[in-house]
Amino acid sequence: MFGVTILGNNSALPAYDRHPTAQVVSIQDQSILIDCGEATQIQMSRYKVKRSKINHIFISHLHGDHYFGLIGLITSMGLLGRTSELSIFSPPGLKEIVDMQLAVAGSSIPYPLHFHTITGAGLLVETPKFKVSCFPTQHRIPCYGFTISENKAPRKINKEKVIAADVPFSFYDELKKGFDYETKTGEVIKNETVTDPASPNKKYVYTADTIFDINLVAHAMDANILYHEATYLQDQSQKAAERFHATTTQAATIAKEAGVKRLLIGHFSSKYESIETHVQEARTVFASTDLALEGVTFLVQ
Amino acid sequence: MFGVTILGNNSALPAYDRHPTAQVVSIQDQSILIDCGEATQIQMSRYKVKRSKINHIFISHLHGDHYFGLIGLITSMGLLGRTSELSIFSPPGLKEIVDMQLAVAGSSIPYPLHFHTITGAGLLVETPKFKVSCFPTQHRIPCYGFTISENKAPRKINKEKVIAADVPFSFYDELKKGFDYETKTGEVIKNETVTDPASPNKKYVYTADTIFDINLVAHAMDANILYHEATYLQDQSQKAAERFHATTTQAATIAKEAGVKRLLIGHFSSKYESIETHVQEARTVFASTDLALEGVTFLVQ
Repeated sequence: MFGVTILGNNSALPAYDRHPTAQVVSIQDQSILIDCGEATQIQMSRYKVKRSKINHIFISHLHGDHYFGLIGLITSMGLLGRTSELSIFSPPGLKEIVDMQLAVAGSSIPYPLHFHTITGAGLLVETPKFKVSCFPTQHRIPCYGFTISENKAPRKINKEKVIAADVPFSFYDELKKGFDYETKTGEVIKNETVTDPASPNKKYVYTADTIFDINLVAHAMDANILYHEATYLQDQSQKAAERFHATTTQAATIAKEAGVKRLLIGHFSSKYESIETHVQEARTVFASTDLALEGVTFLVQ
Repeated sequence: MFGVTILGNNSALPAYDRHPTAQVVSIQDQSILIDCGEATQIQMSRYKVKRSKINHIFISHLHGDHYFGLIGLITSMGLLGRTSELSIFSPPGLKEIVDMQLAVAGSSIPYPLHFHTITGAGLLVETPKFKVSCFPTQHRIPCYGFTISENKAPRKINKEKVIAADVPFSFYDELKKGFDYETKTGEVIKNETVTDPASPNKKYVYTADTIFDINLVAHAMDANILYHEATYLQDQSQKAAERFHATTTQAATIAKEAGVKRLLIGHFSSKYESIETHVQEARTVFASTDLALEGVTFLVQ
C-alpha cells in the first residue's frame, strides 16, 4: 500500500469545511505527515488516520496554514502515551517556536522528538521502505517540496531462467537483492541472466506552495502522483504570481511537461466556495487531474 | 442580550467531537472571546459567531488547549480585512510566541493589535457596556479566572413620581445616570425621590482551570452564571487534585456556596466518551447545573 490521504486542501484559512494543508502518505506500515495546518489532529480523528503510525513529519514552510496544527498534534501524541521517536523536518525556526510554547506551559514532550532543519535540496530520510528528499520551491519565504518514493524494489526472479540455470530456491532472496550466484563448481551465474529488472520505484511528488516555476518539471518527472497547488483559477494568474502562488492551468502544465501519471490540485483560495471550475480548467491542459478532496485516499500507482 | 456561547468544552485534546476550551460572551453588540483552543476559528464558522464583533480576547493561561487556536484566529482576522483594534489579555509569554510566529512567516498583523500582560487580580477592561476583571486560580502555571459584568445599569424612572415632581422629559436621561434635578425656582429634586435603583448588574464568572479552591466562592458570589471546570467525575478526586483540576461535585460545591443562579461545567477529560454522568453528579449538590455543551448559548439572566 502506497497512498496519500488528504486532510486539508484549503489555503490561508479554513472555509466551506475545507481545512488548511495537511496530507498523510501511507507507505507499507508507515505513515508520513506532510504539512500540518490548524485542526489536523481533528481531521485525523474524522478520517481515522492513526497518529501512532506517524514517525516522520515534513513541514514545507512556516506560513501558518502549513504548521499551526503541529504543536497541538505533537503535544496530543504525548498525552496519548506515545513513546516512540518522532522526527520533524522543516525550514529554520520551528524548533524555537515549539520550545517557547512548551516553556510557557511548563511542559515537555515525553517521547524522543528530533527536529531537523532543512536548508537546501537533498535526501532527508532513507529507510528500507521509503526515501524522502526535498527541493526548494519559489515562494515568499523559504519553502520546500518533497519527493516520497518507495525504496529500491527487489529484482524479479525469471522463473524459467533460474530453473534452467539450476540456481537453488534458497538463493532466490539474494538474487532479488542483485547478487550473482556461484555454483559448487565455481561457475558464476550473473544476476542479470536469471532476473528481470525491478519495477521502477513509485513516487509521490508534493510541490508545496509555489509560483508557476518550470524548474519543478524536473522534480516531478515521471511521478505516479504529482500534487501541485492551484490556489487560483487561470483568470487570476497575475494575482497568483504576485502572491507566489499558481493557477489551475499552470499546475496542469507542470504535470503535462513532467509526464506524470496523475495530478492532484489543492490549496484552494478561500474566495472560492465551489472548486469544480478548478478541476475543469486543469483538465483542459492535463486530463488526468483530480481535486485533492479531503478524506480521500489516492493510491500512488 | 448578555449570553455565553460555548465553542469548546474538552480538556487537553480534542475527542468525541468535543473541542479544546473557547467561549464567546456576547454583551449588547460586543463579543468577548475567553480562551482559544485549537480550531476555535472553525468552531466560530460552525456556530455562526461573527469574528468581526470580537474586540477583546482573554486567555486564562498558556496551556495549549486554551490558546493554540489564537494565532490562526488573529491571522485569519487580518486576511478577512479587519481594520479595527483588538486587545488580547493573557499571562506573560504570549506576545513573544506570536511575534516569533509572525517573524518566521515574514508577515504582520494588518490591524492594531494590543497585548496586555496579566500579572495579578484586578480590573482589565471597562467600557460603557461591560467590565472585565480577573482573579488568580490555583493551577500548575499562572492562571486567571474572569468576571464579566454589565456596566452599571441606569436607574429606573419612577413614572408617577417624576410626573408628580414635574421633572421635564428632557431630563430623564440625566435622572437615569443619577443626577438630581433643579427646578427653575432653585428647588432640588433629589434623584432617589423620583427614580428606583437599577437592577443589579448581571455577571458571568469563568473560573478557568483550577484545583478545588474554596477561595473561588468569593469571586463567584451571586453570579448569574458560573462556569467551573469539572474535568473529572468525583471518584477521580485524587487525580484531579494531583493535576490541579476539579471534579463535578467540587464545581457544584463552589456554585452552591456562592449562591449562583446557574452553574455550567466543562473542560471534560478525554477519557470520558459520555459526559452525562458529570451533570448527574453535579446536580446532586447543585440542582441548577448544566453541561457547557458546544454550540449552545446560555443567557446570563
